[in-house]
Amino acid sequence: MSKKLVYGFASGKADGNTDMKDLLGGKGANLAEMTSMGIPVPPGFTISTRACNLYFELGHKLPSGLDAEVGKAMRVLERVRGKKFGDNKDPLLVSVRSGAKFSMPGMMDTILNLGLNDKAVEGLATSSGDRRFAFDSYRRFIQMYGDVVLEISKHRFEELLEAMKKKRGVAIDTDLTAADLEKLVAQYKALVKKASGKPFPQDPEKQLWGSIMAVFRSWDNERARIYRQQYGIADSLGTAVNVQCMVFGNLGEGCATGVAFTRNPATGENLLYGEYLMNAQGEDVVAGIRTPGPISKAQSVGDGSDSLEAAMPECYKQLLDIRRRLERCYRDMQDIEFTIEKGVLYMLQTRTGKRTGLAATRIAFDLYDERRIRRNEVVDRIEPDMLTQLLAPIFDPKDKERAKKAGRRFGKGLPAGPGAASGVVAFSAEKAAEFAATKTSAILVRRETSPEDLAGMVASQGILTSRGGMTSHAAVVARGMGKPCIVGAEEIVINEKAGWMKSGGRTIKQGDMISIDGTSGEVFVGDLHPHPSEIQQVLVEKSMKPAKAPVYQMFARLMKWADRIRTLTVRTNADTPNDSSLARAFGAEGIGLCRTEHMFFGDARIGAVREMILANDLKTRKKALAKLLPMQRRDFEGIFKAMDGLPVNIRLLDPPLHEFLPNREDQFKVLAKEMGVKVATLKQKAEQLSEVNPMLGHRGCRLGITYPEIYEMQARAIMEAAVRAQKKGIRVFPEIMIPLIGTVQEYVILRDRVREVAVAVLAKAGVKVKYQIGTMMEIPRACLTAADVAAEAEFFSFGTNDLTQMTYGYSRDDIGKFLPEYLDRRILPVDPFESIDATGVGQLVEMGVKGGRSARPNLKVGVCGEHGGDPASVAFFHATGLNYVSCSPYRVPVARLAAAQAVLAEKGGTGSGTA
Amino acid sequence: MSKKLVYGFASGKADGNTDMKDLLGGKGANLAEMTSMGIPVPPGFTISTRACNLYFELGHKLPSGLDAEVGKAMRVLERVRGKKFGDNKDPLLVSVRSGAKFSMPGMMDTILNLGLNDKAVEGLATSSGDRRFAFDSYRRFIQMYGDVVLEISKHRFEELLEAMKKKRGVAIDTDLTAADLEKLVAQYKALVKKASGKPFPQDPEKQLWGSIMAVFRSWDNERARIYRQQYGIADSLGTAVNVQCMVFGNLGEGCATGVAFTRNPATGENLLYGEYLMNAQGEDVVAGIRTPGPISKAQSVGDGSDSLEAAMPECYKQLLDIRRRLERCYRDMQDIEFTIEKGVLYMLQTRTGKRTGLAATRIAFDLYDERRIRRNEVVDRIEPDMLTQLLAPIFDPKDKERAKKAGRRFGKGLPAGPGAASGVVAFSAEKAAEFAATKTSAILVRRETSPEDLAGMVASQGILTSRGGMTSHAAVVARGMGKPCIVGAEEIVINEKAGWMKSGGRTIKQGDMISIDGTSGEVFVGDLHPHPSEIQQVLVEKSMKPAKAPVYQMFARLMKWADRIRTLTVRTNADTPNDSSLARAFGAEGIGLCRTEHMFFGDARIGAVREMILANDLKTRKKALAKLLPMQRRDFEGIFKAMDGLPVNIRLLDPPLHEFLPNREDQFKVLAKEMGVKVATLKQKAEQLSEVNPMLGHRGCRLGITYPEIYEMQARAIMEAAVRAQKKGIRVFPEIMIPLIGTVQEYVILRDRVREVAVAVLAKAGVKVKYQIGTMMEIPRACLTAADVAAEAEFFSFGTNDLTQMTYGYSRDDIGKFLPEYLDRRILPVDPFESIDATGVGQLVEMGVKGGRSARPNLKVGVCGEHGGDPASVAFFHATGLNYVSCSPYRVPVARLAAAQAVLAEKGGTGSGTA
Repeated sequence: MSKKLVYGFASGKADGNTDMKDLLGGKGANLAEMTSMGIPVPPGFTISTRACNLYFELGHKLPSGLDAEVGKAMRVLERVRGKKFGDNKDPLLVSVRSGAKFSMPGMMDTILNLGLNDKAVEGLATSSGDRRFAFDSYRRFIQMYGDVVLEISKHRFEELLEAMKKKRGVAIDTDLTAADLEKLVAQYKALVKKASGKPFPQDPEKQLWGSIMAVFRSWDNERARIYRQQYGIADSLGTAVNVQCMVFGNLGEGCATGVAFTRNPATGENLLYGEYLMNAQGEDVVAGIRTPGPISKAQSVGDGSDSLEAAMPECYKQLLDIRRRLERCYRDMQDIEFTIEKGVLYMLQTRTGKRTGLAATRIAFDLYDERRIRRNEVVDRIEPDMLTQLLAPIFDPKDKERAKKAGRRFGKGLPAGPGAASGVVAFSAEKAAEFAATKTSAILVRRETSPEDLAGMVASQGILTSRGGMTSHAAVVARGMGKPCIVGAEEIVINEKAGWMKSGGRTIKQGDMISIDGTSGEVFVGDLHPHPSEIQQVLVEKSMKPAKAPVYQMFARLMKWADRIRTLTVRTNADTPNDSSLARAFGAEGIGLCRTEHMFFGDARIGAVREMILANDLKTRKKALAKLLPMQRRDFEGIFKAMDGLPVNIRLLDPPLHEFLPNREDQFKVLAKEMGVKVATLKQKAEQLSEVNPMLGHRGCRLGITYPEIYEMQARAIMEAAVRAQKKGIRVFPEIMIPLIGTVQEYVILRDRVREVAVAVLAKAGVKVKYQIGTMMEIPRACLTAADVAAEAEFFSFGTNDLTQMTYGYSRDDIGKFLPEYLDRRILPVDPFESIDATGVGQLVEMGVKGGRSARPNLKVGVCGEHGGDPASVAFFHATGLNYVSCSPYRVPVARLAAAQAVLAEKGGTGSGTA
Repeated sequence: MSKKLVYGFASGKADGNTDMKDLLGGKGANLAEMTSMGIPVPPGFTISTRACNLYFELGHKLPSGLDAEVGKAMRVLERVRGKKFGDNKDPLLVSVRSGAKFSMPGMMDTILNLGLNDKAVEGLATSSGDRRFAFDSYRRFIQMYGDVVLEISKHRFEELLEAMKKKRGVAIDTDLTAADLEKLVAQYKALVKKASGKPFPQDPEKQLWGSIMAVFRSWDNERARIYRQQYGIADSLGTAVNVQCMVFGNLGEGCATGVAFTRNPATGENLLYGEYLMNAQGEDVVAGIRTPGPISKAQSVGDGSDSLEAAMPECYKQLLDIRRRLERCYRDMQDIEFTIEKGVLYMLQTRTGKRTGLAATRIAFDLYDERRIRRNEVVDRIEPDMLTQLLAPIFDPKDKERAKKAGRRFGKGLPAGPGAASGVVAFSAEKAAEFAATKTSAILVRRETSPEDLAGMVASQGILTSRGGMTSHAAVVARGMGKPCIVGAEEIVINEKAGWMKSGGRTIKQGDMISIDGTSGEVFVGDLHPHPSEIQQVLVEKSMKPAKAPVYQMFARLMKWADRIRTLTVRTNADTPNDSSLARAFGAEGIGLCRTEHMFFGDARIGAVREMILANDLKTRKKALAKLLPMQRRDFEGIFKAMDGLPVNIRLLDPPLHEFLPNREDQFKVLAKEMGVKVATLKQKAEQLSEVNPMLGHRGCRLGITYPEIYEMQARAIMEAAVRAQKKGIRVFPEIMIPLIGTVQEYVILRDRVREVAVAVLAKAGVKVKYQIGTMMEIPRACLTAADVAAEAEFFSFGTNDLTQMTYGYSRDDIGKFLPEYLDRRILPVDPFESIDATGVGQLVEMGVKGGRSARPNLKVGVCGEHGGDPASVAFFHATGLNYVSCSPYRVPVARLAAAQAVLAEKGGTGSGTA
């Protein structure tokens, strides 16, 4: 590796280029590239990430040689600009900016106007002929330097500024006079001395090195570390430092500054899209004090006269040209910053722009249609998770912004189910149902949900809980239903009984209107008016024709391309005929997990279920089961119909029985009356069923062993439904799945019993039905003994939720107590319930697949945990050789796309990404 | 394999011998052996286990050729005895007995007098000259045949017998006359016809084959299957059938029958020990209707005139001679059955006799001293578990027998802690402490125990619970304390609040006296007066001199021999200086697990612990921890002292914090007052700490991460204690263990923190202390990533309790709901918390050892779960290459012996077992 630490860019020539992001960071590499392209960029240089890493290796000391290289580079800038750094008459001023490979909040951002001091500010006043400008620049510099280098809270500077404005009776900064600003500078310097114990440094060299080291240090601050952890960015990358000659957008007339996207980042529309401010420095645009104007006339909501296009047509034309050249070079939408100093345009930054799912999709297809990128690149460029944005109802970002400004943001939790919903607060499932009965949209708000709340969740537009994680009951069920959901909003205190919730001094009562954004996790007071997505309207509501739905058409095109590439089959987790149809509309190629217990919660059924559970003898239990049989059979028949021609994997009863029991006094009373037994007897039985660790308790196949009649009933319902459906011409492929197998003995006992029932049903009906019996792999021991299990089982389906719980020893209901800290401190790179832990849990999956196929080479293997819809996990499952993944209906498109990208990644990528 | 199915023995010649137990069963092989030895055995033959297995393979059909072989063998018997089978005048009568390789309750036992029918009985009456004998024999035959072949409950026959006795006004069977018995025979036959629908079979051939097939079938009956499962006997062995000429001990004068052991099975004393009855059939001895006499004069409690030695001196001398010959042949104590027909002695059975732990030990040493067996055989012959019998207080078996007969047996549970205890019932820890304060022995009776009950457990003589399994809190703690304990006595209904328990219609109130036998699991009403073992008195109470304690001396000799053989180190799980000293007395070579949380429950401490947990800020928490520091330090110093020169492995806090919280209203009130906060605030905090699945929740190193100050305090207490102890000349080797590691990151963070504290403490003290930091391997993921963990950790200690919970997905608190059925149905061969599951859990242990040593070849690896004291598990750990096992103090001798046996087994055994 070259020992070079500093890379210059000036006068159309640069030492670096856009491919050197590792060394120069994103900003530096792109400044170098733009310079080489002949795009006007203020001259400057980049101190490489290598220098940053050496700084840390040396224990916060500057590497030798850096001093000389920076000095040399500064001399170049002086030569190019014809000014001298530290000169008191016409000083060369520079900006210092961080620039890591990936843009990162929390990193030190920018120090402007570096080089000013008490003397140089007078020189600047003279040379610019604008004393106000000079002291405003000095004031800004002291504040930025004080904040990021000396770690004096910027609020303390702002307080002084506010006091001055108040004293002068003015509303905005620009109304302060040169004299005001001069006084403010004196106050700022006094603050610096008081807070840091030293006077504000007057030596520009000292200022420069102080800033450079502050950038280095900011690489290691907490916020940046957390961000890297969240986005899987390696700590070893380090940051570069960009030092650039200042250009000023605030030097009076003919000056401006702006930010723009080369295409609309919200919609993807192929138009330059951005904002600018006349006579301002860059930070003023985002500060929101003055309202910026639109870049183009087209973008203007007025007559266009407020646009840059109207105000500075030449610069606008130049920007359009630069836009074209940047997109040709980068082959993607760019996010740019620019400054116009006295009519001269300078580009300060270009980078690939962030965008919504909709924009990402449209831009990718537009670039394809413009022949800029290839088909596989289109498929590879759209983050699968972004598709959920296309599918989910949404709030208008402007509405959210307004609500925030109005102080209507109530709290924040984990974004568990994407999409937006507004409705009145219901603190119980019953209340939610009441609202639904009166056609009132409701948001179910609970500390946490249980299967008892299912009806309430169905009746609600969205769910909000103060406890639980991304795979808590509320989160899983809500995603399954495609409902917006926020969980673990710990700052919100909920009192369900009293009917209120509190956060930050505000109280919301039952019946009050709130809005939840399940994509961001934010909760708002009042109605933010969500609207359904276009795809939803075409595929689900069928209220829109495909031809009239351009977003749907893009979606369909993307899915078609992805389907051609992928080799993994994508199934769905669905428990009802409705869900099955929905998932099929979204492209599911069968059901990977039909949870029979969800069918047990309907009003008509729960009574029979409870009778079955609380029965004291086999006869009573069989009687109750006999009531359930026709209901389950009907469900299964509906599902077979919806999945005509596709496999349907049905899991026999899994959860501990006490989950079905009443938990309220009145429910006990009703049930006791129905069953003709005493309330005390029922309660005693319920108490007997309660467990210390239900997740590790009497559930799954353990129930099948101790209450064989339950599985018998279910097997009968499945096979009878299959016979009926087949007789109606439906092609059925039932797969009966036995859950929670830990020993092959359990499997064999239950398999034999199920098979016996199946054989009897088919013999009676006199027909043949192709069916398979297999097992869910969710207990570590099952994976460890997979060869034994596969010798008997016809298929494996990995239940990676439970497998993760047991492999890590984490209860997903309780992980909220330490997970946030574990993620913060990078003990876990990611929530293992969200994305599979390839190292540990994945090792058991691999052992399971390998062991299983050693005993049965053509073993069908899938996954039905929540991971089936997580793109990173889908890639892992593809690599592990699974036959299919299964996920909730709304995740099916995500999985299809992720499965295609897994193939592309395996082939070494497409040569292009979204970074 | 030979196709021979029948093996004869008669006239001093036999087809089989004692080594053919697989084929002939234990009984048959030994009858053949005795025959060849010239010992008088009634002639007979054995149908091999192969015939039995063929019978099942053929779907309950007799294998071809068996008929002919049996016929041929019967002809031999006819020839030898000079009688004909089915003859009406002087019929040959035979017995039919099952005989598997291992003796097994539940198997069909015996049919006597087979060959009798309505005509032959008359012949027998004539030939024997004893009509009463003939009809009594016929009556017995019908009853036995009816019971085991025709499956007519024997109670129905007994009812008829009782009715007859009542009618005749006699108390015992023998007072019934020939005429009475003749009538009874008629009634029996009527019963058979009524119950089976067919008359009692008159054809002796039919009787014979019915009996043979009944023996075959009994191999597969439920009780036999359960027994095999419990004792790990393969289903594929099958049973043999022994057909033997009848000899009669009930033919009047000169006739007798008896059972004996060649040595005393309770004490091991080298004397023929047994019982006999004049003029009786074998079943009468065990039936308990007539009181049998002692075999020898020495054994007699009277003047010896009631002994066989006095009554039939010739036969007695002959028995002594046979005893000598049998022991020389079998090299072990034998359990024999004999019958004397008109002065002629016949041996009916010999087998290795069951014995108590005491007897096993004494007999082994005596045989060694007699030069019958070698040293390694002594070590190999004593079942390690039996040692606990030598260590535990015991009830006199006669006292138990008497109590049972008096109907004082109250219930039965799992024998969780061996030993006997009597005391008054206390339904709460407080009540137990109250009793203890007044020096009243108490038995703590709870539905289940929690750490809150610890003081009550300490205060009690024994523990009885109605819930929980062999590794429930009560069981583990009780074994650790060496206290008798019965858990999971489900038939007993306990109402702690009301202060009573019920079982089988009887009610016991608080303060009533009960006795519990933790070795058998039996609960008795009243005081059965337990007494401490000799070893206990020598080693623990120090109230007996070793020289005066012969049992202790044997124990010490055995341990010395075992220690020479074993390679595994044996440590102990001990939490207090007392336990440490105790364990050391029992031979512990260090502490493998010191659970620091148990120290938190003392009266003086729990307050500070609760303050620590419920603190709302770091300051309050640190204040509470500062109170705990000196207490923990004192504990550790005491432990180091007790373990001078030996390693002490201390586990940092492990259980979820809410385990320490108050759970009663009054406790909350006291604490709230102490802490100066509201009860409601405390309760809310407690509620926040509660978890759905605490076993998978916020515990272990997860607490260490989120509350770093707890581990810091503990590390400080350990190292400060080590410094103090070392300054006093004690050699300390602390090992600090971080529990529940799932990722190496957790370990590194906590290791660094602990090391920092240790370095600071040592620097301040200016001394060097050898210490190690390592981790507990109890999360599957830790085993899967063992190489990563071992790169950082200095030792591994497998926590196989938790590892078993997570690998199987079994909560040990809840497993009681299905474990009994899982064991019954042989889904699990054994409770995996009792004996390690080598296939699954063991695979993770092996991966952990292999992975760990791949990164750190000299990695010290031990096990500290309950399995460390289980002999089968110790053998597994030896084979897996562990350095040490650790177990509760009272299991240390067991582990030492088991570790020695593991070495012997590895070397291919000693050529002798206890089977």
